[in-house]
Amino acid sequence: MSAKIITLLTDFGLKDVYVGAMKGAIAVINPALTVIDLTHQIPPQNLTAARFCLMSAYPYFPKGTVHVAVVDPGVGSRRRAIAVGLTNGFLVGPDNGIFSGVIETLGEKVLSAVELTNSNYWRTPRGSTTFHGRDIFAPAGAHLASGVSLEKLGEAIDPASLVTLSLPEASRPKEAEGAIEGFIQYIDGFGNLISNIPGMEVRGRNWRAIAGGKEIPSGNTYADCEPGELICLVGSHGWVEIAANGGSAQSLLQLEWGATVRVLLGDRGSQVLY
Amino acid sequence: MSAKIITLLTDFGLKDVYVGAMKGAIAVINPALTVIDLTHQIPPQNLTAARFCLMSAYPYFPKGTVHVAVVDPGVGSRRRAIAVGLTNGFLVGPDNGIFSGVIETLGEKVLSAVELTNSNYWRTPRGSTTFHGRDIFAPAGAHLASGVSLEKLGEAIDPASLVTLSLPEASRPKEAEGAIEGFIQYIDGFGNLISNIPGMEVRGRNWRAIAGGKEIPSGNTYADCEPGELICLVGSHGWVEIAANGGSAQSLLQLEWGATVRVLLGDRGSQVLY
Amino acid sequence: MSAKIITLLTDFGLKDVYVGAMKGAIAVINPALTVIDLTHQIPPQNLTAARFCLMSAYPYFPKGTVHVAVVDPGVGSRRRAIAVGLTNGFLVGPDNGIFSGVIETLGEKVLSAVELTNSNYWRTPRGSTTFHGRDIFAPAGAHLASGVSLEKLGEAIDPASLVTLSLPEASRPKEAEGAIEGFIQYIDGFGNLISNIPGMEVRGRNWRAIAGGKEIPSGNTYADCEPGELICLVGSHGWVEIAANGGSAQSLLQLEWGATVRVLLGDRGSQVLY
Repeated sequence: MSAKIITLLTDFGLKDVYVGAMKGAIAVINPALTVIDLTHQIPPQNLTAARFCLMSAYPYFPKGTVHVAVVDPGVGSRRRAIAVGLTNGFLVGPDNGIFSGVIETLGEKVLSAVELTNSNYWRTPRGSTTFHGRDIFAPAGAHLASGVSLEKLGEAIDPASLVTLSLPEASRPKEAEGAIEGFIQYIDGFGNLISNIPGMEVRGRNWRAIAGGKEIPSGNTYADCEPGELICLVGSHGWVEIAANGGSAQSLLQLEWGATVRVLLGDRGSQVLY
Repeated sequence: MSAKIITLLTDFGLKDVYVGAMKGAIAVINPALTVIDLTHQIPPQNLTAARFCLMSAYPYFPKGTVHVAVVDPGVGSRRRAIAVGLTNGFLVGPDNGIFSGVIETLGEKVLSAVELTNSNYWRTPRGSTTFHGRDIFAPAGAHLASGVSLEKLGEAIDPASLVTLSLPEASRPKEAEGAIEGFIQYIDGFGNLISNIPGMEVRGRNWRAIAGGKEIPSGNTYADCEPGELICLVGSHGWVEIAANGGSAQSLLQLEWGATVRVLLGDRGSQVLY
Repeated sequence: MSAKIITLLTDFGLKDVYVGAMKGAIAVINPALTVIDLTHQIPPQNLTAARFCLMSAYPYFPKGTVHVAVVDPGVGSRRRAIAVGLTNGFLVGPDNGIFSGVIETLGEKVLSAVELTNSNYWRTPRGSTTFHGRDIFAPAGAHLASGVSLEKLGEAIDPASLVTLSLPEASRPKEAEGAIEGFIQYIDGFGNLISNIPGMEVRGRNWRAIAGGKEIPSGNTYADCEPGELICLVGSHGWVEIAANGGSAQSLLQLEWGATVRVLLGDRGSQVLY
């Protein structure tokens, strides 16, 4: 059963009509579908960002939602166009690891996967297929959300063959007891630095973070520090995040994607010592 | 009776999936609702801008529309999460004055108000509630728009207890007869300077404006002056506005939010003398 | 018969609530319509860009779709507000040439045209009409998409009287055999330079382009050249385009709208000689 909802996530931006044309291609197939933009401002060709954003939004959508994600540095190369059926939803896009966050990090089980080889479910009326977002992915997603079974969209492929984009996991360095070392996996539009350290590692603990050579106290919310000050907390996405109350942690710390973040854990209820 | 329409106004921007996650949370509750973005580009934590924008859009929506507005410098502090029932619509968001434009300036009558204390109407399945936009406000708005009565969402609160964000009103300075003095309450994306002087004060009159040390002639439309020239007029929002034909009045005058604007009135049909 | 779909294309941007108010005005008339944003980031008052964008998206929408396009340097002047019925859709907006791409370049046949003089189909409840996007065009579009016949919206006008915005067509310069000379008609958000040379002129040929003093090899897709290198190809919109793999052709070539692009054609299957 389908929720009749399609989400779109791309790096196409909003200046041009590329996204509009995708929505037109969807409307041609089924104007009654609900189309929801996740974002179209993924930094160009940044699969790490796309992977993170899709994973961050996925859990908040109804069962059966179809997520069309098109960040596609390899368009025109031999990468496959795929659709994947999961326990709670469907994914449609290039087979380049963009879905790794949902499948590996969230642990959504792959029930089946196909390569989008059946051109009957591409854009109609048949035309050029140079723009895969508009000509293949959006139409395939529209058919899926309209109740077409995944199997009809193309040839079955082995779920184990899907390209993965695995990021290193946060680790516990031997030389530093009570520490967790990770890195910045995403920087949001506010300049919040989102690490790859799971929030569950620090919940209920006393903890602080070290990043950019600074020690940063933890709190529960942005308001737990003075305006302009840095704070670390578990963000709404579930990861340890470094933020600045009313400002940009990125600007204050001058850190980029991939920079190291270390969390120092104290005992439950005790102070951190290091 | 509900119009089954929800609008969203936030300062979350469009780069990340924060807005997308709010829409997912709405779709989980009722995928048939119509969700309309007012804007997500309120300058961060700028309640004055949010207040103005919500007030500017409100009159153009059907009776019963639910407006969810989340610009929330105090998230995590003790500010209340509220929903307000008005004659023509509903407001859902933080109790921080963001609704003052609609309630005080437009004069929409508050019929009832509640604090959003009933977690049965928060996001389902129950999870973290660190992101109030996604976890509390959007779900509450979705329930309201789906026909749940305001009273069910939480405990009734005294409308008189709502936090207000009152801006000084335009005034008539004693020392300058025929003048109205106000300030810039909003600068739009074109650089138009929107004052807090109501358009009805100048309708049918000869008038001009003084701002940034310059005298600016009035007209009915942007096209009433030469390209690149300044003009003052009553904008589509109903306020006295200073604009530049095909350019940015803000750039030309180098004025910021809060800067003084003075209107000089002539008699009906006569020239302004001063 | 109507597809019950309205698209919106404007230069209003997304910072303010101007677009939101248009959507409210549509919802007042018919909340069941599907509203699709083409783009709201046309460069201010840039009719050439608006003309291109509308033409680029038009073919991908269902028959009967109503396209409301508001880029309107002449608002307030005597330009007409019009609606046009075509073979495959409807156009609503100012009579300033914004529709020339659809009508002349795509060759969509005009079946009938009206001036939007019937104020019964303007915004209700009746109010100011200073903001034509919100007060006239969006409501007229909503009525059209809801099944109101074009003729009811106002007085019929001669299709031949519509203002046109004709761009010079690509030409074959006498002094250079096998060459086609055109110009950059649009630069997209990625910095791709989109010429006015139709892709069908080069399909199946060996060809290359000259722009900004550089010779640029042709390919079928962005991936047909090394990262950072320039390539020319037929874009998804059907025009000869100069792109950079993973970069901005505009930045690399430092070219602006209107700059000359020359295509050099070889024989089918042969090398280009010049």
